[in-house]
Amino acid sequence: MFRDESEVRIIERDRPSPADGEVLVRTLAVGIDGTDRRVAAGEIGGDPPDGEDHLVIGHEAVGVIEDANDTELEAGTVVAPLVRQPKADTRFAENGELDMAPPDTFQERGIFGAHGYLAEYFTADPESLVTVPEPRSEYGFFIEPASISEKALDQAFAARSAFSWDPEAACVLGNGNLGLLALARLTTGDEFDRTYCLGRRDRPDPTIEFIESVGAMYIDARETDLSDIPPDYEPMDFTFESTGYPRHAIGAATTLGPNGVATLQGVPSSDRYDVDLGDYHSDMVVNNKAVLGVVNSRRSHFETANEWISDIDESVLDELVTGVYDLDEIDAALEDTDETIKSVVSFTR
Amino acid sequence: MFRDESEVRIIERDRPSPADGEVLVRTLAVGIDGTDRRVAAGEIGGDPPDGEDHLVIGHEAVGVIEDANDTELEAGTVVAPLVRQPKADTRFAENGELDMAPPDTFQERGIFGAHGYLAEYFTADPESLVTVPEPRSEYGFFIEPASISEKALDQAFAARSAFSWDPEAACVLGNGNLGLLALARLTTGDEFDRTYCLGRRDRPDPTIEFIESVGAMYIDARETDLSDIPPDYEPMDFTFESTGYPRHAIGAATTLGPNGVATLQGVPSSDRYDVDLGDYHSDMVVNNKAVLGVVNSRRSHFETANEWISDIDESVLDELVTGVYDLDEIDAALEDTDETIKSVVSFTR
Repeated sequence: MFRDESEVRIIERDRPSPADGEVLVRTLAVGIDGTDRRVAAGEIGGDPPDGEDHLVIGHEAVGVIEDANDTELEAGTVVAPLVRQPKADTRFAENGELDMAPPDTFQERGIFGAHGYLAEYFTADPESLVTVPEPRSEYGFFIEPASISEKALDQAFAARSAFSWDPEAACVLGNGNLGLLALARLTTGDEFDRTYCLGRRDRPDPTIEFIESVGAMYIDARETDLSDIPPDYEPMDFTFESTGYPRHAIGAATTLGPNGVATLQGVPSSDRYDVDLGDYHSDMVVNNKAVLGVVNSRRSHFETANEWISDIDESVLDELVTGVYDLDEIDAALEDTDETIKSVVSFTR
Repeated sequence: MFRDESEVRIIERDRPSPADGEVLVRTLAVGIDGTDRRVAAGEIGGDPPDGEDHLVIGHEAVGVIEDANDTELEAGTVVAPLVRQPKADTRFAENGELDMAPPDTFQERGIFGAHGYLAEYFTADPESLVTVPEPRSEYGFFIEPASISEKALDQAFAARSAFSWDPEAACVLGNGNLGLLALARLTTGDEFDRTYCLGRRDRPDPTIEFIESVGAMYIDARETDLSDIPPDYEPMDFTFESTGYPRHAIGAATTLGPNGVATLQGVPSSDRYDVDLGDYHSDMVVNNKAVLGVVNSRRSHFETANEWISDIDESVLDELVTGVYDLDEIDAALEDTDETIKSVVSFTR
């Protein structure tokens, strides 16, 4: 599966051979998200590895070690791979904090510069593989997207650690698959008592059903401006933005109460807006608010995601998976309709 | 000294009597800042205490305990008073974190709801007084504004504590007295190797002289857009906004390099701008940037400010004080010219 001049095609490639110190992984499943769709459409990323003419896409993967190749890993172990790999020596690469590395010092497998995982086999450095506990290994493709909300929580709690923060209410902006997975995390974790999710859909709708099934409250963005969420619902302590809608870059903070923190995850294109920066500035200061940009994730976030995925009721994960496809159905897997939450390409059917 | 219908007048009041558990403080000096000027002009705050018709202004004070009134404090001790006092029971009031308390749960002495310190005597709860070390007691009026940068640093480092942050460059936006005091703190502390300060002045200028005398580099905002600071100077790890210019609410982040953090301190009025929120959003995320609103400060920030004021070369503080006035020269003390950095009203001359 690869992208070539914004065209997605399935090709035959030789089974990759692990280099010294690498392992060979047989892919079990790969989740599809908005980034994959944008790469496939030629909107972002897509740069092939040096000297090649195509990029294998896919970055949310779970696989099983086929050839441990004399590393410390064992054949048969189920693993989820990290997305970034270093292309320069930085202290972030050394520290295992590649998620904080400056642009141009890394590649992202399946997104730019390095082949991804939407293939029957891939090779990987053991450092980039996180073991997925067996009972939930079939859901291992959720580990990577779930690690994003783990990083967001990690950064958000750190940002509120200079005083006694006692959060109660959390809100997810956006009901895409990343948003709903984050919402499931927030409703099942013990950090927050009440959760909300913003969308722009009419009932009946599978995302609204999911929101309510996990015990969160649906907020219709067409009826409620972000700044009306505090008076109409309640002031949020934590808001997780997953829409990539540029106006939310400053709007997310208006959903917060005093001392709240918003994390931004979307990566929109250039777009101008006429906005009241005086009110925004003043509200940020007077209410000690924080806004954090959050991208990618590291091993520790995969590990806490693993714990959560292992603990959560399986039905929650099942409800998120709205389509399982074979590789030759990739076009259908890449489609995004109102019925789509998470599409998964399975290599084991 | 009080404000009445935006008019500043000197009046005779009875010497205040400390209530049980309070002490009587004889004022030594009071610093004047932009907030005082805005209160005096009737732009912000100014609400008298309940049942009174005037507000004593002044919130940057140093004094000496005249009557310890059977508290644990001792007469003769030099103290700097906190600004906020609770008007409701909150956990922030209990924890000594009133700087994080929600609006409407506190008053600010000299700003709204409670008399300030621009008077020969004031009373105070011992909990709201921080002892100022004797050798630098004459500079004690700097403790309150210096505590603001301590809080900003405290929050900024907390916000970057979820990874191995290694900051080098810091920038202050604004060359007012709060900005220059923060700059002095940043240049003399050990957190940063290089410091910058943004202004809009031509040489010769006392603020540019100060900036260079403490070893920082002056950036002329009329020649360099905030977003050009990274390429033209260097990407900042920490930016301290002290202009209150609404555009800086999002502009401050454009001065940052990857993983940088900006703190906003200004409280501007409503003001609309046409800005590229797509670029802002994307830059925040891709570079893991953080923006924090920061207001007021707590006892621990006064204490670290005390340490810094005690360690710093006295000449740095002297250079900031551009005018010392008697109380009857209050109109001159409230003036703000291009020659003004810090005006101080002295009660001991």
